[in-house]
Amino acid sequence: MHRFFVPASRISGGRISFSNEQRKQLRNVLRLRSGDVVTALDGSGREFVTKIEALDGKLAIGKIMETRTPSTEPNTRLTLVISLPKGERLDLILQKCTEIGAAKFLIIETVRTVRRIAPDKIPAKLDRWRTIVKEAAEQCGRTRLPTVDGVISLEDALAQVKSGTGVIAWEEEEETNLSSVLPRIKSADEITLFIGPEGGFTEEEVAAARAAGIIPVSLGPRILRTETAAIVGCTLIIYGPEG
Amino acid sequence: MHRFFVPASRISGGRISFSNEQRKQLRNVLRLRSGDVVTALDGSGREFVTKIEALDGKLAIGKIMETRTPSTEPNTRLTLVISLPKGERLDLILQKCTEIGAAKFLIIETVRTVRRIAPDKIPAKLDRWRTIVKEAAEQCGRTRLPTVDGVISLEDALAQVKSGTGVIAWEEEEETNLSSVLPRIKSADEITLFIGPEGGFTEEEVAAARAAGIIPVSLGPRILRTETAAIVGCTLIIYGPEG
Repeated sequence: MHRFFVPASRISGGRISFSNEQRKQLRNVLRLRSGDVVTALDGSGREFVTKIEALDGKLAIGKIMETRTPSTEPNTRLTLVISLPKGERLDLILQKCTEIGAAKFLIIETVRTVRRIAPDKIPAKLDRWRTIVKEAAEQCGRTRLPTVDGVISLEDALAQVKSGTGVIAWEEEEETNLSSVLPRIKSADEITLFIGPEGGFTEEEVAAARAAGIIPVSLGPRILRTETAAIVGCTLIIYGPEG
Repeated sequence: MHRFFVPASRISGGRISFSNEQRKQLRNVLRLRSGDVVTALDGSGREFVTKIEALDGKLAIGKIMETRTPSTEPNTRLTLVISLPKGERLDLILQKCTEIGAAKFLIIETVRTVRRIAPDKIPAKLDRWRTIVKEAAEQCGRTRLPTVDGVISLEDALAQVKSGTGVIAWEEEEETNLSSVLPRIKSADEITLFIGPEGGFTEEEVAAARAAGIIPVSLGPRILRTETAAIVGCTLIIYGPEG
């Protein structure tokens, strides 16, 4: 069944008023009509089995037939803090880590971040990144819509994390593996994973993270590309042992 | 340091004769010259610190200065058996799962495989897939070169797997998670993971796998794309608990 996230403001009196963009999707792309049934999601964990009542060139209205709360969300609320990577790697990271189950994405700039986005271009980029996450979330069966924010500094990102609930992937860490730390931190409600840019975090950045109670961890003896590190790290945290 | 896999036939008397393609890479792309040092790998687990002795328009010869056996290979020898996916998804799977640590890739055709490759086009495709794997292996620090074979039938692939050492990802499996099976099968020297096409395996295919001693497993409540399932499955097996 086709799935659509809709803002809470569009749900009222047991009916859903789809956005203009969704109306076009329903009508012109999926070629649905009155009487067809879709799933609407308010992003809070609930999904609404919704019968289309009206669908034309101007509006798309659905009637909620049933409300469900499926358990497709992971127990761990994972925030991925990721240094803006080159090219289209962030698109891949956002799509894959949404499927894997991340709850929040926070894009940061670090000392070795290669790609820079002019401040006036960031809102358009955020729109694009949020669309990628929304489409992935709709397709894979998420009931909560992951958030995407940024671009902020590493320092500001560190300030948002409670001590002892975060890990930072660092290729120079040789003693502590992510897997070995997980049993300790999985008791936290929220876990934050920091992934650096192509050139890695600097020693000063890792020292700052450590001072904020973030644990430097290794992802093993092979050198993972930044997007692989993000995907592997999210997988190990979401699927890993419960604390 | 730049890394190159070379066939054993090109290593003799403490010297390495690089291929014509590698010669061009060394000379024209990396702009190295005599006296520069690179790492050569014979794919068996050893790496050779190699000083370039001659590099010109005709040949590239290096002298082995030191032989090492680094421990970058995972303990588990993982074979990924993957139904040929659409578009460029296989490229992504090969690259990422090489970094993660898969040892073998076996491409199969299944009932719902959408993409078909004419038999006469398969050798050229295999060349391309092996190049992707080789470049990923060189970059991430592997010392064994993963193999790529196919395209064969699911039946022929099942015949190659020892009972009790394989898992097949199936979205209709609701009881057994991959993570819960791992402690049981990680004692095997080799583990095989079967990943289906976009439309999934058929019930008959899963029954055939089960009859061959392959365990159907779930990758969780979210619907993963085929490439995400391959990457997540490989990650959990390589990084998972030891048997």
